[in-house]
Amino acid sequence: MNRNDTTARIAHVFRGTFVHSTSGAAVEILQNCVLGVDDQGKIAFIENDRDEESLSKLWGFGASDIKQLGQHEFLMPGMVDTHIHASQYSYTGTALDLPLLEWLNTYTFPVEAKYKDLEFANNVYTKVVRRTLKNGTTTACYFATIHTDASLLLGELADKFGQRALVGKVCMDCNSAVPQYKESSILEDCYPKVKPVVTPRFAPSCSSSLLSELGEIANNNKLHIQSHISENKGEVELVKTLFPGCKSYTDVYLKHKLLTDRTVMAHGCHLTDEELEIFHETGSAISHCPNSNISICSGMLNVRNVLNHKVKLGLGTDVAAGYSPSMLDAMRRTLDTSKALTIQDPQHKTLSFEEVFRLATLGGSEALSLDDQIGNFVVGKDFDALRVNVCVPEGPIDLFPGEGDDRNITEVYVAGRQVVPFPDT
Amino acid sequence: MNRNDTTARIAHVFRGTFVHSTSGAAVEILQNCVLGVDDQGKIAFIENDRDEESLSKLWGFGASDIKQLGQHEFLMPGMVDTHIHASQYSYTGTALDLPLLEWLNTYTFPVEAKYKDLEFANNVYTKVVRRTLKNGTTTACYFATIHTDASLLLGELADKFGQRALVGKVCMDCNSAVPQYKESSILEDCYPKVKPVVTPRFAPSCSSSLLSELGEIANNNKLHIQSHISENKGEVELVKTLFPGCKSYTDVYLKHKLLTDRTVMAHGCHLTDEELEIFHETGSAISHCPNSNISICSGMLNVRNVLNHKVKLGLGTDVAAGYSPSMLDAMRRTLDTSKALTIQDPQHKTLSFEEVFRLATLGGSEALSLDDQIGNFVVGKDFDALRVNVCVPEGPIDLFPGEGDDRNITEVYVAGRQVVPFPDT
Ligand SMILES: [Zn+2]
Ligand SMILES: [Zn+2]
Repeated sequence: MNRNDTTARIAHVFRGTFVHSTSGAAVEILQNCVLGVDDQGKIAFIENDRDEESLSKLWGFGASDIKQLGQHEFLMPGMVDTHIHASQYSYTGTALDLPLLEWLNTYTFPVEAKYKDLEFANNVYTKVVRRTLKNGTTTACYFATIHTDASLLLGELADKFGQRALVGKVCMDCNSAVPQYKESSILEDCYPKVKPVVTPRFAPSCSSSLLSELGEIANNNKLHIQSHISENKGEVELVKTLFPGCKSYTDVYLKHKLLTDRTVMAHGCHLTDEELEIFHETGSAISHCPNSNISICSGMLNVRNVLNHKVKLGLGTDVAAGYSPSMLDAMRRTLDTSKALTIQDPQHKTLSFEEVFRLATLGGSEALSLDDQIGNFVVGKDFDALRVNVCVPEGPIDLFPGEGDDRNITEVYVAGRQVVPFPDT
Repeated sequence: MNRNDTTARIAHVFRGTFVHSTSGAAVEILQNCVLGVDDQGKIAFIENDRDEESLSKLWGFGASDIKQLGQHEFLMPGMVDTHIHASQYSYTGTALDLPLLEWLNTYTFPVEAKYKDLEFANNVYTKVVRRTLKNGTTTACYFATIHTDASLLLGELADKFGQRALVGKVCMDCNSAVPQYKESSILEDCYPKVKPVVTPRFAPSCSSSLLSELGEIANNNKLHIQSHISENKGEVELVKTLFPGCKSYTDVYLKHKLLTDRTVMAHGCHLTDEELEIFHETGSAISHCPNSNISICSGMLNVRNVLNHKVKLGLGTDVAAGYSPSMLDAMRRTLDTSKALTIQDPQHKTLSFEEVFRLATLGGSEALSLDDQIGNFVVGKDFDALRVNVCVPEGPIDLFPGEGDDRNITEVYVAGRQVVPFPDT
């Protein structure tokens, strides 16, 4: 037991049960442990509580500084939503009877155009940041809209409420359906925990020259990249027609230098094994969005096959094609889709609850190439954590956490800062 | 506008928006209406509010007696859970990685044996009745256990908390795995809104003579009947082996006179069209339990095909193989399964949200042959209703009810009696 950093001071100490994922274990349950967070928001130590006395001397904290977790409580890493359209939160759950391309033209584009009005943007973005924090999303990878000011505002709000975020100002130049909706530029890198992400909407709404330009910007500035890929079969066919020189949907992004180890692509339901191989080679990740995949009948991603190809994978709510902003829902729907695949093919190896827990936490951090900073309880990483109580008064659970929801997440921390309950409530 | 009953007095009047299903419309939205409930708990009138003055004279209520629903509120019929194992609530969500027959032997039978202890039963049954009421289940069709005393207690608790219920003391005599778990008798008919239901667990755990005996009891006493059928493929094969003289699983119940117009059978995932034809002819109903069907990989019921055969169908949570006691979850999972079937076969006609709403309310009442008493807002039916507010403070929804849960159900009525919020809280 050593202190490397003798300047940092301890800001929080928790004692009790800690649940997280590691490279070796889908779920590791650490009982009777103490975890210290320094004043930089980093995990200073996590040790068995029999070492509490020496830790308290080493780090200079007293018994009264320790927060004791109750019998029905544990800490887990904050969840990572790898794909969410902040701008679509205003119509979550509407019109999920339309297929993707119709749905975009009917609902998405007209609503997104409203975000040139900053008051409108402020109202919805405040709600989405607070709502997702309350549901335990400590890191969100957001699609905003084409509006630079509103996208900057989303970054500002994430910073204000303390959420870690990647914010993407959407780029597109081929959208004939709603012609005023065109533009291209990117967010500046302006907050410690909020970063820009280069965001071509998806291949069908971008010209080859826009895709090349975005690939260049991302590579020159070592920026994150996000987009959509192979969400449904009609879209895959459309991309073949639009980019006849490319071998596959994946090849379109590859040729435009948009597949890097900082890339996350949403959906990927219909990717071939050859395409998954390219994801593996480039270190690009997939965001699995099971709620929206089912809700708009896009397809069912075989996550087991993706993992077998050693492709990085996280979970996404994909609000608003996904109707729930909760990552707990994304976890349940991931299990459902995996079980539906098993019903179709009994040889399919169903994902375990533990594997899905990992995808929602460590897997998400890997998908966003943030696993050096977050994802589990490792000394030196930022303390992004949820305090979970399976028996809250007036909560949804009597006996077992099968039905847990935001009421069971009593505290949320991002980089050591307590962000839930909100300071104003 | 006439009063047939001049003795009944008005106990409640609501003014605002009412949403329900009718024989003609999956969803009918009645705005600016007034609905009166008499002191027998029956709907006395439902009219446009321009007739309020004449109604108030006719029924003798004043303006101050009217409960005005807010802008974000509506009343809907209470939901009908057509299949729930009250006794399994103690381990909701555990071990959903085992297939049905293993799961029964490993978890279900040993836990159910505990219900000979009435204190244990009282604890769990109190929780399940309160929890389901809070989630808007005004009528539940319960499996209890083989224990007569505990089953009677469940009926007593439903009556006490005001839930309408069918309570089934489980009958089985072929369960070699847990040999002490055997018996057969039925609940008496003892409360106004709580009725017994003859409950052979399922064909594999009942001898032919027990099934015949139960069929006779049910027919002689005009009792309801419930059981399980064709939940998964292994079970279907097992039944073929156990009843070689029967043409199908359905034929087993038919031969033992257990298919009547007061019968509801859970699951039915693998029923053939010929079997559905028998359901139609006998007036027997199916309880669709999509959460458990997916959770233990049993199969996906094609509800559209069942409805095309004009077979009565309601929704069930099937706690605990289904992990959620909420009928809102059963509705969402019904949509998911229907959409998964569309993903497999684009020709499949996906169920609409409106159709699923009807299945959870009017459809459930038909499946339990209670549609002469409940299921929608029709004069003369009992007032079983939920007051829904899509914008509750601290609720799960900011903008739209895609994610609604028990927090949005602010009041629950059964036969005119307000049962939620609970009187003690
Ligand atoms: Zn998306
Ligand atoms: Zn059952």
